Amino acid sequence: MDVFEQSEYERRIERTKERMLERELDALVITDPSNMNYLAGYDGWSFYVPQAVIVTHERDEPVWVGRGMDANGARATTWLAEENIHSYSDDHVHSPYDLHPMDYVAGLLDDLDAGDGTIGVEMDAYYFTAKSYQRLREKLPEASFEDTTLLVNWIRIYKSEQELEYMRQAARIAENAMQAGLDAVGEGVPEYEVAETIYSALIDGTDDYGGDYPSIVPLLPSGDHTGTPHLTWTDRRFEDGDPVIIELSGCRHRYHSPLARTTFVGDPPEKLTNTAEVVIEGIEAALDAAEPGVTCEEVEQAWREVIQSYGIEKEDRIGYSMGLGYPPDWGEHTASLRPGDDTVLEEDMTFHMIPGIWQDDVGVEISETFHVTATGAETLAEFPRELFST
Amino acid sequence: MDVFEQSEYERRIERTKERMLERELDALVITDPSNMNYLAGYDGWSFYVPQAVIVTHERDEPVWVGRGMDANGARATTWLAEENIHSYSDDHVHSPYDLHPMDYVAGLLDDLDAGDGTIGVEMDAYYFTAKSYQRLREKLPEASFEDTTLLVNWIRIYKSEQELEYMRQAARIAENAMQAGLDAVGEGVPEYEVAETIYSALIDGTDDYGGDYPSIVPLLPSGDHTGTPHLTWTDRRFEDGDPVIIELSGCRHRYHSPLARTTFVGDPPEKLTNTAEVVIEGIEAALDAAEPGVTCEEVEQAWREVIQSYGIEKEDRIGYSMGLGYPPDWGEHTASLRPGDDTVLEEDMTFHMIPGIWQDDVGVEISETFHVTATGAETLAEFPRELFST
Repeated sequence: MDVFEQSEYERRIERTKERMLERELDALVITDPSNMNYLAGYDGWSFYVPQAVIVTHERDEPVWVGRGMDANGARATTWLAEENIHSYSDDHVHSPYDLHPMDYVAGLLDDLDAGDGTIGVEMDAYYFTAKSYQRLREKLPEASFEDTTLLVNWIRIYKSEQELEYMRQAARIAENAMQAGLDAVGEGVPEYEVAETIYSALIDGTDDYGGDYPSIVPLLPSGDHTGTPHLTWTDRRFEDGDPVIIELSGCRHRYHSPLARTTFVGDPPEKLTNTAEVVIEGIEAALDAAEPGVTCEEVEQAWREVIQSYGIEKEDRIGYSMGLGYPPDWGEHTASLRPGDDTVLEEDMTFHMIPGIWQDDVGVEISETFHVTATGAETLAEFPRELFST
Repeated sequence: MDVFEQSEYERRIERTKERMLERELDALVITDPSNMNYLAGYDGWSFYVPQAVIVTHERDEPVWVGRGMDANGARATTWLAEENIHSYSDDHVHSPYDLHPMDYVAGLLDDLDAGDGTIGVEMDAYYFTAKSYQRLREKLPEASFEDTTLLVNWIRIYKSEQELEYMRQAARIAENAMQAGLDAVGEGVPEYEVAETIYSALIDGTDDYGGDYPSIVPLLPSGDHTGTPHLTWTDRRFEDGDPVIIELSGCRHRYHSPLARTTFVGDPPEKLTNTAEVVIEGIEAALDAAEPGVTCEEVEQAWREVIQSYGIEKEDRIGYSMGLGYPPDWGEHTASLRPGDDTVLEEDMTFHMIPGIWQDDVGVEISETFHVTATGAETLAEFPRELFST
């Protein structure tokens, strides 16, 4: 089975070309692996070497370019004709010969009659290094370059029915993995054992399908470390009195549905229970506020008004648009739920809302992935919104 | 327990400063997460936002700079004094305000009296985007920039006793995971189930310690897909007659020990058995050739002479230096075992040697991670070198 119908890829290309026209671009060089997947269907762990998908107005299909040994992977996963799959030889990889993969890409842009045109590049995308840009410029002195970092990401913000279906499948996986993780946490249990249990559930998936690898590993900051959200598991054993935040995501065909919950080893102190109640009231107010026509900052405001009513002052980003992703991130880097972001919510956008409150370095985080429907917001996972304990 | 003694970090900084002197650099801006870990000890899944470790001659310690919410993670994992931990506010992240994290880094370089000096940047390192470089240049018009992409990587090529110890621990994990993976492959078993079994073993580790997440997910190309080495697992079920290549790595404190083996669902055809024998003879010849004083290309040549004696012509990179790593790669991008690489092997270098032979699109890959000792090469894992079958 193909992951999407060809017509869906064609619509994506059409929208991309419309934006290229607005920006007066002759060619678009897409290097973000998520955007490469979105336009061409390409899916492989090969983003550790330079690769790209190139869109030009003259061609109906984009062109995939990557390492020679990955061309078969492009044939297997993209919807592209053989003539649109190009690859460089292995002496371009970590080359001692002053060869760089972007030298080949520059030659290809020339062949596509775009070498002296206006070329869009994703200046701030993962894996588009400073060197990649420098080599493209050196090899194409007649070209002019435009920064098109989020051009495709803004198209991705609207999800199709098939994309939503994969995100719902990812939500089923996330529910299973969260339950398994909460069940595994306990006094004396090493962090890695909980991480193993979660990973296992993430890949085992459901009775009907397996799970893909998530773009971010499961995070489970605990104890003093709930204030260090991005440290990964260690050999440390959970102790009585540890708060533990579990943040994970199910993944299906690279589409994510992240979920976070907080648990406590032992009997949670009243302060933590109270904090959790504020977080729950806040996230529910923000979910209630989310609907087409409302801005991202208004959603954050609904959260903030709740916590302010309890005397808590903080202005944070509490969420972001997301969906398709590769390591190191599942976020789309476009709209954020935070003060100053006046992006208007529209039907079929999807966000991960992850607010939290830390007091005396001990925090509670509870998150939901939601889909903006015609009339409101629907969470993808169904999982109890409460402070758990072991 | 700290991952390394402070004296080990100090030696790393000393060697880095020596190379900075040779290159006449006033400051070095390290953005590769592996190099940040190597110099400062920093370990967190935060490389999806810009961050850096800065080395200057005047300071004994490097300076860590990252996102505000990750400063606690830097306090928890680095050996640095509080004054050397700096962080930017969250409005720099995917900013709608035309703020970029590198604006803050530029200001910090100014504060460190390096804003008008010669600054080394890792032009081709993961996560150092074209935009990051552009912003640094714009904000520091008086500075001159030098490309120092592999400066720290070439220091990392020599492993200390403690680093080797972590790689040996990773090898124990790799052995367990490989055995579990080989046992799990079978007719009708879905690929994701084998991936789950392997991941589980990688994180469960051994009786004495858990495993860290590997920088590359386990890969298990099978059937026709043994020719697409970087596709990840799917819902597909293994069929009788499938060759399956398993490539994985144990990981301990971010140090890797990769291992690859090939198995077959059912009775392997004679052609595959014969191919496996050539691969085994070839890798053993190359391991025998590896010792201090020999060049990388001579090691590859030992492999090539064996396969040529069976009438197989191919000139490939069959290995690379490796150790410490973060997604998307565990390779160090310095020395490669391939024609044209005249790097001389020295004691305490470590390589992953991963040769393979494909015939009619069906391949055999068998790999070993080895340590260059005073007199030869020692594989880190002890795992039978043969073609497996279910």
